[in-house]
Amino acid sequence: MQTRVREMIVAAIAEGWLRPETPLPSSRALADCLCVARNTILLAYQQLVDEGVLESRARSGYFVCPQAKPMRPDMAGRDEPSGAGVDWSARLRAYPSRQRNIAKPREWSSYPYPFIYGQFDPAIFPANDWRECVRQALSVLEIRGWAADMIDGDDVYLIEQLRTRVLPRRGIWAGPDEVMVTLGAQQALYILAHLLVGRDDVVGIEDPGYPDARNIFRLRTPHVVPVPVDDEGAIADRIPDACSVLLLTPARHCPTGVTLSAARRASLLQLAAERDILLIEDDYESNFGLSSDAASTLRAHDPSGRVSYVGSLSKTLAPGLRLGFIVGAPDLIREARALRRLMMRHPPTNNQRAMALFLALGHFDRHLRRCVDVLTERALVMRSALAEHMDGFECRFGTGGSSAWVRGPEGFDSRRLAAGARDAGVLIEPGDVFFLDDQPPLNFFRLGFSAIPTHRIEAGIELLGRLARAAEQSSPVPERPASSGAALDAAHRAVSG
Amino acid sequence: MQTRVREMIVAAIAEGWLRPETPLPSSRALADCLCVARNTILLAYQQLVDEGVLESRARSGYFVCPQAKPMRPDMAGRDEPSGAGVDWSARLRAYPSRQRNIAKPREWSSYPYPFIYGQFDPAIFPANDWRECVRQALSVLEIRGWAADMIDGDDVYLIEQLRTRVLPRRGIWAGPDEVMVTLGAQQALYILAHLLVGRDDVVGIEDPGYPDARNIFRLRTPHVVPVPVDDEGAIADRIPDACSVLLLTPARHCPTGVTLSAARRASLLQLAAERDILLIEDDYESNFGLSSDAASTLRAHDPSGRVSYVGSLSKTLAPGLRLGFIVGAPDLIREARALRRLMMRHPPTNNQRAMALFLALGHFDRHLRRCVDVLTERALVMRSALAEHMDGFECRFGTGGSSAWVRGPEGFDSRRLAAGARDAGVLIEPGDVFFLDDQPPLNFFRLGFSAIPTHRIEAGIELLGRLARAAEQSSPVPERPASSGAALDAAHRAVSG
Repeated sequence: MQTRVREMIVAAIAEGWLRPETPLPSSRALADCLCVARNTILLAYQQLVDEGVLESRARSGYFVCPQAKPMRPDMAGRDEPSGAGVDWSARLRAYPSRQRNIAKPREWSSYPYPFIYGQFDPAIFPANDWRECVRQALSVLEIRGWAADMIDGDDVYLIEQLRTRVLPRRGIWAGPDEVMVTLGAQQALYILAHLLVGRDDVVGIEDPGYPDARNIFRLRTPHVVPVPVDDEGAIADRIPDACSVLLLTPARHCPTGVTLSAARRASLLQLAAERDILLIEDDYESNFGLSSDAASTLRAHDPSGRVSYVGSLSKTLAPGLRLGFIVGAPDLIREARALRRLMMRHPPTNNQRAMALFLALGHFDRHLRRCVDVLTERALVMRSALAEHMDGFECRFGTGGSSAWVRGPEGFDSRRLAAGARDAGVLIEPGDVFFLDDQPPLNFFRLGFSAIPTHRIEAGIELLGRLARAAEQSSPVPERPASSGAALDAAHRAVSG
Repeated sequence: MQTRVREMIVAAIAEGWLRPETPLPSSRALADCLCVARNTILLAYQQLVDEGVLESRARSGYFVCPQAKPMRPDMAGRDEPSGAGVDWSARLRAYPSRQRNIAKPREWSSYPYPFIYGQFDPAIFPANDWRECVRQALSVLEIRGWAADMIDGDDVYLIEQLRTRVLPRRGIWAGPDEVMVTLGAQQALYILAHLLVGRDDVVGIEDPGYPDARNIFRLRTPHVVPVPVDDEGAIADRIPDACSVLLLTPARHCPTGVTLSAARRASLLQLAAERDILLIEDDYESNFGLSSDAASTLRAHDPSGRVSYVGSLSKTLAPGLRLGFIVGAPDLIREARALRRLMMRHPPTNNQRAMALFLALGHFDRHLRRCVDVLTERALVMRSALAEHMDGFECRFGTGGSSAWVRGPEGFDSRRLAAGARDAGVLIEPGDVFFLDDQPPLNFFRLGFSAIPTHRIEAGIELLGRLARAAEQSSPVPERPASSGAALDAAHRAVSG
């Protein structure tokens, strides 16, 4: 509250409401008026005196300093900005906003049943541990370490923690010249797309797959082609001949949750070597509830450096922090650093240092264990609620993870369900956007459970089930095929339940 | 120290040196061995017990928890990664590391005389004020505000502070849909280049000019053309006809420090309107020591929205924080948000929130005033030291700012001086890299004074003067023209001193 009072006064001076030399209200009057303790006001005034904003005059109270200047210049006579004069639709060279992508309501956390993916549950956030690390990163010595412009560098302490503590868990051993920190896994994909894909290259992506990745690669080339997925993961035999770069989510396929089998992994690596295909392994959910099977990454089985590995640090902790990383061949990482320098120089080093401390103190490991426990419990509740309330819908979870992939009956339109459910307080993610085809099947949707409290799941799924049955009864004849690809059908049947 | 002990123990467990159920050394023994107080060890042990890493057994001391798992998997049998198999030189589609750019030694702060630009002086950093804001951003309520994935959004509080507190000082009034936060001004330039420049577009840049900007635009088009600069700034009459996008640093030209004159500004805006040229205004140093002449931005005088404005928040505070912003037409900002989503989603929201508080509490304004005082003093010391010790070298400072642009005699090679000076503990930045031409003049260099303590300036310049005279005497006949462009010559003479 003291802070609020200070902000208020500083803003009032900056905006010219409180002029220099103006007396402030008495602490008693302002305290009454704001319904706070008088002491709060006095402390705020005194702090502002220390900061040279106010001055205290004996027996007269507090005044705005004579030197304080309103910052708002005279607005009279300024030119009113307008868009007239530039035809932006003719001048823009890229329209990323026109791409199909996942859309979540900004205010998702105010919905009672937010079954959305990849969001933050404040109840799991290890606030005290994180605070400890941030506080330490604010010591005078640490500030000297992170405040400078690193140009194309990273916090060496974080690189060390990644190499010795995070990567070995995934079977990956990397030198300092093979690792770069990124602003979330998203930036890692963008940088790899920029470096590895030219406009004539053909890029294979899983279908269905991660929409942001598809959009990133489409910024580089029109030749983005589908690779179908079955219950062992991406189908090696179905990779188009022309494909020179292939993006995979082996540990947990996005969005179905399928794990790439050992046999499929071997054939993918062999095929890539034969055809000289570069592989990008997006291990986006590696930390969430996977078994400790360190052998399960492609990179761990790739002696050639052909696999570039992408991981996330902040996804499990707080997506707003935006920290991820790339592991790749030294030649590639050198260019990635040069490109990142032009894009933004480097991810903020204060966050890099706090995260390094968080890892070094073992807080990260403990937080992951906690996440696994919570998500395992939620997955059980989800399974039983879906079995009870969503008859006729096939659900798959895969191993670990924080989402279910649901397939509705033929002719079912999940976009209509999502719109109706939203009005009833239930958020779900329609699945059409995950498919490459412009005429995608409409009967799939995703249910995330990282952000919804466990005790709300049952009621949310029950409500969703009622809405789905109502929607189904009023459903029109389908205009589009309900699902595309026999392989996908088979996959869904094999893993669903 | 307590933290160090905890890190050590956690690391030893993770790496398998301390196995589950192993007893820890007695607190006395470990304290002796590490030369710390016994209490430090006891506190560290107790905290690790609280965290479930150790357990305390009555009368037996501390043990590693039975559940603690070494994280390092068996290294035997892993494939040794090697680059063999991929010919990266044939596979990369971009080589940003081959661009000419400014190179600063990573360990610049260990040099006694670092005359480098844009770096951080820990003596000016307002550590207490910044800590206060970071601490507040870590309250439970604030964490809920910033921890989530914002997708393409920003902290609304920071946008508000920019609109009401930062931009009006530069004569700019913008709606919430005209402002986007970026990861430093660098990302703002990258995003604008991506959206406004296709491979057939011709981009005009100041020559000399900011090398990173040149490199960013060259990622998009081969047609980057020079616009010469005189003592009134970029010369409107010399803008090539084909130019469709023009990048300018009006407030303080990089690297010469020249401010765009009012007459020149008017003719540039008129020309841009006539030829439909899009302008990018890089106000990178707007906060540093400029007069409060709010009228001096191009954007303030542009009713058409043709000028996109780029600013930095972190440059004056701590470059490592990486916070900047774009102001532009709503149609442009919408696409910028969609592109930023694909690049990295959004700048970390914890830093956005801390910066918003820093602005709201008036700390930023106070910090700027302090910077101006310090830099003004340093500029005076620089001027007098340069006049005394660098006879025959012309120096220009421009208004405000934190660097001098120095021109050596004909035939002088600043790269040789820089190499020799570095060995003597003096860092300077050779000027050739600022010129567009592949055969740039070699007799210019830049002296930054944001990172060097004031009391070291005199001695550093004296030393540099001695080295320069020695270098001049042993200088070979020049192989290249000493400077290019008559306008530049005139400019230098007009403003130097």
